[in-house]
Amino acid sequence: METMKWEDGSLKLLDQTKLPLEVNYVACKTAEEVADAIKSMKVRGAPAIGAAAAYGLALGGFGLCTDDPVDFKRELKQISDMLAATRPTAVNLFWALRRMVDTAEKASANSVSELKDILLQEAEAIFMEDLEMNRSIGRFGNELIPEGARILTHCNAGALATAGFGTALGVIRAAHETGKNIQVFADETRPLLQGARLTAWELVQDKIPVTLITDNMAGYLMKKGMIDLAVVGADRITANGDVANKIGTYTVAVLCKEHNIPFYVAAPISTIDMKLDSGDDIPIEERESIEVTSVFGQVVAPKDVKVFNPAFDVTPNELVTAIITDRGVVRPHYKENLLKIFS
Amino acid sequence: METMKWEDGSLKLLDQTKLPLEVNYVACKTAEEVADAIKSMKVRGAPAIGAAAAYGLALGGFGLCTDDPVDFKRELKQISDMLAATRPTAVNLFWALRRMVDTAEKASANSVSELKDILLQEAEAIFMEDLEMNRSIGRFGNELIPEGARILTHCNAGALATAGFGTALGVIRAAHETGKNIQVFADETRPLLQGARLTAWELVQDKIPVTLITDNMAGYLMKKGMIDLAVVGADRITANGDVANKIGTYTVAVLCKEHNIPFYVAAPISTIDMKLDSGDDIPIEERESIEVTSVFGQVVAPKDVKVFNPAFDVTPNELVTAIITDRGVVRPHYKENLLKIFS
Repeated sequence: METMKWEDGSLKLLDQTKLPLEVNYVACKTAEEVADAIKSMKVRGAPAIGAAAAYGLALGGFGLCTDDPVDFKRELKQISDMLAATRPTAVNLFWALRRMVDTAEKASANSVSELKDILLQEAEAIFMEDLEMNRSIGRFGNELIPEGARILTHCNAGALATAGFGTALGVIRAAHETGKNIQVFADETRPLLQGARLTAWELVQDKIPVTLITDNMAGYLMKKGMIDLAVVGADRITANGDVANKIGTYTVAVLCKEHNIPFYVAAPISTIDMKLDSGDDIPIEERESIEVTSVFGQVVAPKDVKVFNPAFDVTPNELVTAIITDRGVVRPHYKENLLKIFS
Repeated sequence: METMKWEDGSLKLLDQTKLPLEVNYVACKTAEEVADAIKSMKVRGAPAIGAAAAYGLALGGFGLCTDDPVDFKRELKQISDMLAATRPTAVNLFWALRRMVDTAEKASANSVSELKDILLQEAEAIFMEDLEMNRSIGRFGNELIPEGARILTHCNAGALATAGFGTALGVIRAAHETGKNIQVFADETRPLLQGARLTAWELVQDKIPVTLITDNMAGYLMKKGMIDLAVVGADRITANGDVANKIGTYTVAVLCKEHNIPFYVAAPISTIDMKLDSGDDIPIEERESIEVTSVFGQVVAPKDVKVFNPAFDVTPNELVTAIITDRGVVRPHYKENLLKIFS
């Protein structure tokens, strides 16, 4: 199972809105199609959005007709802005687009044709590096996982959220691969059920023991002593170690604090936004009511009821036991220690 | 809208599994039909289950053919046991059935025919008293609600969970009736979505401002300062003030503690089980996987994924700011103060 693949000049995306009912790839041939896929969450998960956007910008480049490199770069910047406007919270999107645009700017290419090739190569590099980073996250994170651990995770920070292997699920996969007899409890993660539809599906496929629960059950399990640690992904981590991630993550962190359970965040360094001082500065996306009032098209609430649907929340650094990055495990004090991994 | 009504010799139950899509009454003519309705949650909510079971036992009595009062009472006891076996957690069920059986035992009736009438009268008394108790809960609880309060509630402790008016929603209705400009945030309450399907529906009908959220959003709202207090119902309260209620209630209570928000429980004294010392002794019902893996018949998780589906959790007394009963507001120390309201 691949989250995305470059094939025949198009980006094939596994349509995650249809999982686990259908395994279906959609082929994006233009930057606009990639932007739509990101907006509609056919592809989701911070690192996967970053890689998809990079391919989207490469596709955008291929679609430009000019032969003038200066015009090309100017138009490329506009396509980048269009792709950047798809979703506000995950920083990997902006990180990947900036890297793509910078690459084009700095390229010593003389022709537009060369620039187009360079952009595709850069997108492929972003994709491959993400895969490699997830393997590293797995290796570093595995050191934190005890034998027989019962691990709670929220949303999907798996192969489907990345170029492959996963961040939080990368840690889980690494622990499983080393024979630690772990068990996973997956929060279903309303409204879009990424835990039920994606995390449970990934883990079932990999034969990693997983038990599905609704989001409101995690506290009960912790109180009963059924959870040893929690590990989640991240959409943006600020310089002080605050973590934006899927709505409900903050509640998991508060519950971990109440029950003295370690709360780990796993993310590549592309998720760390050193330009923002704290989580208060992270824009939180609000999505449509219909995500809450219906499930796979099935209406579950009174028509026209008012809904509040923030897609993310921010977990303050004091609730985060450690951040597992591809460059190692970072512990508090985050402001100092996150700086170190970038130097 | 009536949760249940006695009509033409049968108990008409508003089928809560179909709300808000359909408003449909099912007519139960036998104790077995009432038992099925309780098991399948056509009727749910601790006080409503109690009242329905009482009517169910009256129906069971009407169905008995014996003319011998001794035989009648013996067979009635068996029907009571059958009704009691429907759901394990809510204590009102056992309370109502015991009251019905005791009434038959103590009745000075000479004929089975008289006993049958006495049982129906007792069921009607239980129903009417519950309605009255909810009004009292509303009056007492209203004193705790500040002007303009933004109130979080979980599951449905409304008219639909009771003979009418509601416990937690009784407090909310009373505050609304006195013009306090309150706003309600309703947790959708997975897996069966009683918050989305029932609470939101009730409040929309009564034109009480309500915003629907998923269960995992409450923490975010509290952190943003959007919630002033939480009020929930209860399925069983033990002598020490521990509270069994719909799964997810404990998490709400932990979040309230973290944010210094009052956490109130509203319940009639029929919900208080002075025979149990603590919440550890309350049996917690586990329900079928399919409630988690599907929504209104729509599959949302991989086939055959393992599921854990506890229907309730227990909130320890130290997280409960006050218990709002029909005899007044009870505050800690609960062991002493709950005893007082029974004396």
